Order: sequence, then structure tokens, then C-alpha cells
Amino acid sequence: MPPDLPAVIPIDDPDDPRIEPYRDVRERDLVGRDGLFIAEGAVVVRGLVQSTRHRTLSLLLADKRVAAMAPLLAQVPTGTPVYSAAQAVLDRIAGFPLHRGILALGARGVQPAAGDLLAACGPVARVVMLFGIGNHDNMGGIFRNAAAFGADAVILDPGCCDPLYRKAIRVSVGAALLVPTARLAADEDALALLDRHGFEAVALSPGGAETLAALAPPRRAALLFGSEGPGLPAALLARARSVRIPMAGSFDSLNVATTSGIVLHHIASGQAA
Amino acid sequence: MPPDLPAVIPIDDPDDPRIEPYRDVRERDLVGRDGLFIAEGAVVVRGLVQSTRHRTLSLLLADKRVAAMAPLLAQVPTGTPVYSAAQAVLDRIAGFPLHRGILALGARGVQPAAGDLLAACGPVARVVMLFGIGNHDNMGGIFRNAAAFGADAVILDPGCCDPLYRKAIRVSVGAALLVPTARLAADEDALALLDRHGFEAVALSPGGAETLAALAPPRRAALLFGSEGPGLPAALLARARSVRIPMAGSFDSLNVATTSGIVLHHIASGQAA
Repeated sequence: MPPDLPAVIPIDDPDDPRIEPYRDVRERDLVGRDGLFIAEGAVVVRGLVQSTRHRTLSLLLADKRVAAMAPLLAQVPTGTPVYSAAQAVLDRIAGFPLHRGILALGARGVQPAAGDLLAACGPVARVVMLFGIGNHDNMGGIFRNAAAFGADAVILDPGCCDPLYRKAIRVSVGAALLVPTARLAADEDALALLDRHGFEAVALSPGGAETLAALAPPRRAALLFGSEGPGLPAALLARARSVRIPMAGSFDSLNVATTSGIVLHHIASGQAA
Repeated sequence: MPPDLPAVIPIDDPDDPRIEPYRDVRERDLVGRDGLFIAEGAVVVRGLVQSTRHRTLSLLLADKRVAAMAPLLAQVPTGTPVYSAAQAVLDRIAGFPLHRGILALGARGVQPAAGDLLAACGPVARVVMLFGIGNHDNMGGIFRNAAAFGADAVILDPGCCDPLYRKAIRVSVGAALLVPTARLAADEDALALLDRHGFEAVALSPGGAETLAALAPPRRAALLFGSEGPGLPAALLARARSVRIPMAGSFDSLNVATTSGIVLHHIASGQAA
């Protein structure tokens, strides 16, 4: 192996204490990791390694994948342990068949305040603001769309789940590591905050007053989404500009991640025009 | 129980031969069911019971849910067996914890030919045409969007997975049972078929010649989507009008179900305007 690649540390024993944070990945998901998180798959791990916000603490690879990962390993900061194990050992460490064959342990960076993210936006900007999104697939899907349409930030209310949960990161294809993210305080007035920073709040709701297609995108747009069941809080809807996506017949509603894609596309193409 | 409700047949033994089709649901998913399929959850089972295309062969409910299901049971055709079991028995039958507490066994209706579905469309119409979509989540998500935006049909190429797979039906929130569906024959020329029926083919591709936002929706639009990796077949892209959704920076692509939602929204709102 060329000298610019990190030495790969072989692991033969699934109980080796050095790979303890990778043990029983799924069970750990359920209890949380206190500032640490797991990235899986080549694309997502690359996103972590390249992240300026989060720190890569170690990597764990199937030994058959080490050679193909050389370009990625070359980017790993000096001193970051890279472990490798036979597939069977890896599966026993993770607690399930780890087909992707690559995991990394990350340390969460300090999260900026929502106001700081808004203040840093340019004169044409779009941010996504989420209320009570508790499903990790939806969270991941929304981040993927936010990245695809160049959202400046995703801001979460206290009721949202963690975008750095393993599955959310994976569904986001790494976007959860990439898009600037902040979380509102429990008593923070989201609309007052947006107003203070010159953002117009556009609240998505099946009962919205105007249609999305007819909406001329604000230059600084904050796009507000609630969870699929309850939607956005009524108190918030009453104070914001509300927009609906007309639907056919009796069909009740779109998936919230899909909705975010539709809205971001409309806003991004309108802002670019 | 009022006389207009079917008699509910109690099941105490997980090995009772009457509920054999419900046994080990997940393993059965993998081998296919030869014209039969499983619907799960109240919304999806209601969709099956109300379907004019597919037939409900039986229902299996957690006994604690029977009372709440009375409105649905009243719609079940006379002679359709409705079984109930204690939650623990139900879990043993299904082979996993069946939180939704309601399953139904359906028999697939005869699928119309793609040409017949196209011929039945009105002067303003939109159909979705899929090539090589192999992921059941994506298939379900596309059907959900097709229903939400009133697509007249979804037409599948031979490389697509089955929309009546249990998970695809569930993700579609029952739309897979609702939206008219056809499958192309292996040697069928999709573009010639669309042309014959007066449909303009709009092929989605990251390298598309025009942007979606600038596309004036055809009155009879066929929206073509390929799978996330390979995309649409090159031979097809070369002959169709190709459209792209511009994306930010280095982010590579949208999820195909999200893409279908974005495109259907643009086409449906444009056709309605």
C-alpha cells in the first residue's frame, strides 16, 4: 500500500475493544449515542470524511473492500484509525449482514443557532423548516431534496427526530451531513425569527389558501412542513402564508418528503428564473 | 353484532389450515404468490375491499380490532370469510409482530393491455410509464403520487417489480390497488404505442435537453421514468423528448419516487391551468 494511505488495522475478534462503538449497530440506534453517530456505505462515509462540520473518529471496512476504497482512505485525516475485518467478523460485530461493507464512526459537530444560519444567507435563499417530523425515512428524504435543490439550511423544531440517526443519513445519501442544520429552542418563536431575518414563511398544508403552482417564490423563502398526520401546528398556520398542493379525487395526501421535493423544485426554479 | 355484518370466525390455533395463506408473510413475499397478494393496514384493506379490479378472498384481524372495523366489515361481500385471532396468535401466524392488526388476502384481477388503457383516456390525460423500477419502496411511492395527481394509468416495462408486492401496496397507501395498471410485453415498442394513441412522451433524465420548469405540459402526456442507477434506456432517450430537473452543486440525483411527484405536480397543474 502506498505510504500516503493510512495503515489498516486488522480485526480478527468480534469482541476486540477497539471496534466497540460498531457493536450491535441496530440496538445502539435505539438508545442513541451521545454525540456520536454511524455512517454506512461508501457515498455516506465519503461525505463524513469530507465534512468540515463533523469529525471522523474511525472507519471499519470489510477487508475485501479495502483496495477499492484507496481513494477514500487517502482523504482520511492522519491518525484516524482504519480497521478492517473479514465479512463474517464484520457481520458479527454489526449484528446483521453488513452488505455495504463500510462503516464510519462520526462525532457530531457543534450545531449553529438557527438565527446564525439565517443571518448567513444571501439575498436569494431558501430554507426548510420542519415541525414534528419523527420518521427517519422522511427526515432523510427531506435532506436529500434540500441538498438537491440547494437549500441553505434545514431548521428543526424540538419535536423532530435526529437527522444523524443511521437510517436518516443513509436515506439522505449523506445530505444530512452536508446541509447546514439547526434546532429551534422549545420556546423559540419560529415565525418571529424568520421575520427578523427577512424570510417569508410559506406553510404547506392541505387546506392552504393558495396553490403552490400560483405562488411567486419569495426571494428569501422559508418552507414549513409538518408531519404527515397532524400537519403544521394550527397556531403557526394561522400566522403564516399557507399554500396547498391540489390533489385528485379522494386521495388524501402526499408523503412529506415528496412534498418537500415538489415545493423546493417550484421555489428553486422560480428563484432562478 | 348487527345482522348485516359478516360472522367473524375465531382462530385459536396458528396452524389452522383456514388461515394458511397468511402464514409466514415475509417469507412468502420472497417467493411470490401466483396471482394472490396480501394487503395490510386498515386503509389498504379498505382499498382492496372497495376495488372493482381485485377480489378480496378473506380478512384476518386482531380480535381487539374487530369492533372498530365494523364499517369496513359491512362492505365485505357476502360469503367472504373474516377471521379473527388474539394478537399473540396473529403474530405467530404472520411470523412477526403485526402491529397493524389487519390483513387481507386478495386475488389479482385481469390486467388490461397498455393500449386499452391509453385508448380509454380523455383528451387531457397523464400516464406514468416505468422502466426497470425494481425497488418496492419506489414503486409504492410512484403509485401514491400517481393517485395524488390523478394519473390515468401506470404502465410498467417487463423489468419493473410487482406493484402488488405487500410493501409496495403499503407504501402506496393502497394506490397500487386503485390506479389502472398495465405491463408492456417484452418486444413492445413503448414510444410507438404512445404515438399511436396520441400521447407525447416526456422522458426524465439528468441529461435532459430542456428543464421541467420550462416544459409546457402536453395535453396527453406520458411521463417516462427509469431506475435511479441506470436511468432510462439510451435507445429510448434518443427518440423521446427529454427533460431534466436542474440540481444544485455536486449532488447527484433525486429519488425516483420524489422525481415522479415533482413531474406529476408540474404536469397536473399545467394541464389544469
